[in-house]
Amino acid sequence: MKKTPLEEEVLAAIRPRPEEARHIQQVAERILSRIRDVGRAEGMVVGSVARGTWIHGDRDLDIFLLFDPSLTREELEEHGLSLAREIAAAEAESFREKYAEHPYINASIEGLDVDLVPCYRVESACCLQSAVDRTPFHTLYIRERIKPFIDDVLLLKQFAKAGGIYGSDQMTEGFAGYLCELLVLSYGGFSPLLEAASRWRPGIIIDPEGHRARDFSEPLVVVDPVDPKRNVSASVSLTRMCEFIELARGYLKNPGREYFFPPPRPVLSIDEAADLLARRETFLYALVLPTPPFIEEIVVPQLRKSLEAVRGLLDRHGFLVNRADCEMHEEQSMLLFELLVEELPVVVRHTGPPVWNQTNAAKFTTKYHACSERDLFSGPFIDDGLLVVEKRRTYTRAADLLRSPEVLQVALGKHVKQAMERSFSVHRGIECYREEFAPFISSFLQKYSPMTWIARSREKTGPGKGEGG
Amino acid sequence: MKKTPLEEEVLAAIRPRPEEARHIQQVAERILSRIRDVGRAEGMVVGSVARGTWIHGDRDLDIFLLFDPSLTREELEEHGLSLAREIAAAEAESFREKYAEHPYINASIEGLDVDLVPCYRVESACCLQSAVDRTPFHTLYIRERIKPFIDDVLLLKQFAKAGGIYGSDQMTEGFAGYLCELLVLSYGGFSPLLEAASRWRPGIIIDPEGHRARDFSEPLVVVDPVDPKRNVSASVSLTRMCEFIELARGYLKNPGREYFFPPPRPVLSIDEAADLLARRETFLYALVLPTPPFIEEIVVPQLRKSLEAVRGLLDRHGFLVNRADCEMHEEQSMLLFELLVEELPVVVRHTGPPVWNQTNAAKFTTKYHACSERDLFSGPFIDDGLLVVEKRRTYTRAADLLRSPEVLQVALGKHVKQAMERSFSVHRGIECYREEFAPFISSFLQKYSPMTWIARSREKTGPGKGEGG
Repeated sequence: MKKTPLEEEVLAAIRPRPEEARHIQQVAERILSRIRDVGRAEGMVVGSVARGTWIHGDRDLDIFLLFDPSLTREELEEHGLSLAREIAAAEAESFREKYAEHPYINASIEGLDVDLVPCYRVESACCLQSAVDRTPFHTLYIRERIKPFIDDVLLLKQFAKAGGIYGSDQMTEGFAGYLCELLVLSYGGFSPLLEAASRWRPGIIIDPEGHRARDFSEPLVVVDPVDPKRNVSASVSLTRMCEFIELARGYLKNPGREYFFPPPRPVLSIDEAADLLARRETFLYALVLPTPPFIEEIVVPQLRKSLEAVRGLLDRHGFLVNRADCEMHEEQSMLLFELLVEELPVVVRHTGPPVWNQTNAAKFTTKYHACSERDLFSGPFIDDGLLVVEKRRTYTRAADLLRSPEVLQVALGKHVKQAMERSFSVHRGIECYREEFAPFISSFLQKYSPMTWIARSREKTGPGKGEGG
Repeated sequence: MKKTPLEEEVLAAIRPRPEEARHIQQVAERILSRIRDVGRAEGMVVGSVARGTWIHGDRDLDIFLLFDPSLTREELEEHGLSLAREIAAAEAESFREKYAEHPYINASIEGLDVDLVPCYRVESACCLQSAVDRTPFHTLYIRERIKPFIDDVLLLKQFAKAGGIYGSDQMTEGFAGYLCELLVLSYGGFSPLLEAASRWRPGIIIDPEGHRARDFSEPLVVVDPVDPKRNVSASVSLTRMCEFIELARGYLKNPGREYFFPPPRPVLSIDEAADLLARRETFLYALVLPTPPFIEEIVVPQLRKSLEAVRGLLDRHGFLVNRADCEMHEEQSMLLFELLVEELPVVVRHTGPPVWNQTNAAKFTTKYHACSERDLFSGPFIDDGLLVVEKRRTYTRAADLLRSPEVLQVALGKHVKQAMERSFSVHRGIECYREEFAPFISSFLQKYSPMTWIARSREKTGPGKGEGG
């Protein structure tokens, strides 16, 4: 597929340099030969290095250790980890044990970030014994087919990185490398993919092998060629999918270098953030907690769940939330809320049972007939058949609600709740601004889709500047 | 049905005095004999006087003029009104033409409020030619049957009046006199009716003649014994029905004189109202307009419709309405709103089309990419597949919205809209208080069901005081 001058220029910048490729090959060869020497498993390079689809500057090298499928799961973990550790001890400057579906070793070797992952050497993809067993088959499927499309994959990966939608991790909820490769293969190149994506709708199904064996609920479905029951794009959120659609349309209409190398999003200083907040006239509240001691894949979904739960609490108490977002950092995490209302009148409407529910109606009226005038402003009266009173509001200020025990009683994520039970702090207005959260707060206060960001930065540097160079 | 000492005491107070009965009979006889003398129609006393179910102090006398059914509608109106005017000219101190389904004469005769209503003398209730033709049949149905229950009807009418639920007019939406009579007849007395009512639910159907000939959507259905297609309690709102249920339960549990003679609801002075409003911490807004020159039955439903329309406008713009009500007076009418929020931040979220609607998405993003930073705070960004911007709010203050042309663009009642197009004023806080609306504002700020009002006044005068007198 012929590339435009712009795309050729981008490719020149992102193709791995020859010395880079040589270096990575050398390290890989050395590790493979050491595995052969030990002889307890078969080594296999997988991932983008194996497929030639990695980008200049990438430092990831994934090597799988394929063990005999007759091993038990415990044996695989024990022998696998022991072999990986042995290799790493011999080759790496440093290494540590990590855990995905089962444990593996992450090592730092001559500037590369090397994963040594034990798995089963199964005969075919239909006999998978663990989730990672699939990866070698992905490499086998892609390796030859992708050869005519290497440049397209590089362009797509850079395009997705630039748009902030590359990566299947929980924080990004975007497009994995393997997914990029499959999309390029399915549509026959970068440009045809963008043409197609500009017309995508949620619910679209891409099934390269035409062998889908179940229904999927995700907005974007790409059936794994090596597993008819797996959606390769299960991680892609509706928002990331739509951001990709927008970027595809924008690029097709008016291509530019910004789609691959966007200007960095500015981080606001505390004074700039304060000005912006004052201009918005809204009320910012941050709940800061010690980050639970677990990996991002566990903590981030819990933060999101907690965010929605606290948002619901604020809404139920009448403090209208305009927007909310969360961020996880090494030490601390933040739930951030922008309110339209931070203070409410002391009167609150409380709706009771219908009048015709005699027992509950009697309980309700007896209770409120006995209520002091200090705590009851009106009622009981009847509205639409229901008994209603207007009573004293428990929390007239959002800050009081957020500092109350109620926050710990909503549906927080398990480890978030544990962390908050130990300690959390509530901040208001510009006091939410903390150095380590400055980028997060900046993009919260100035929220744009990736496409809008590119359009706006173009406006400033002049239209068309990006075209062709 | 035996009455309690309390009920006997009430009856002694509300039964018409002998001289009162004599006087009303004399006036009626005189008018009937004048009708006979003229000879153009047959005269008939209807309503509570004809049935002996009127209450001491009532001044209403209804006399129907029954014309030959062969007259056309135009002839009936012409001859009927001419006869009624002739009678009134001879007997009344003053009189005027009024209009219900067709025109009639309302006259003031020796302290009585006399209606002279022309109708057709149809053979049976199945041959009604106009809505008022039904009334003579109501009297014929009730007159003999009600004799053993006169006291029960008097008690029920006084009970309903005291509870503010007597009258089928648009403002009250309560229980008409004929309905009270039918209810007493159906259940066999005042006490059995209250027993039954305490267990009523919306949807109950009372059908004395067991001849219902259609479905009804109203919460309380009492099928007219003289018309199987008419619900006598069509005018009773769900709220009035429930208030009656509450009062029935309260009276059965702990009867008292207050159920027939409640203490008057206090009218707040401007200072008291200001204090109460300050204590509630809410924001009161009144929209005052010249009352359209039509009868209550036409204006009140239009005021209610307008109230809901303006309430919707306030809600849509983010000004949370706690409660709203309206009131019609001779000269001016008021729409009254109590807000929880009267000012909002300048930022407002505006949701556009879904990203996958390519044409509209392009229009939306093009528009907002070109929007100045002054008017656009964030976006376009994507949320749940939809394009979203945060832009400048048109009305940050409820007062500005209520004074804007938008108020005239919502679904106001026709004549209310015409009146408001000429002029209306917006008042805030205690400035809503105007002498003529003082009782309305007082009961708005201290809203109770009739039952609550009785319970509270008992509390103050001491429990049980009412019992037996």
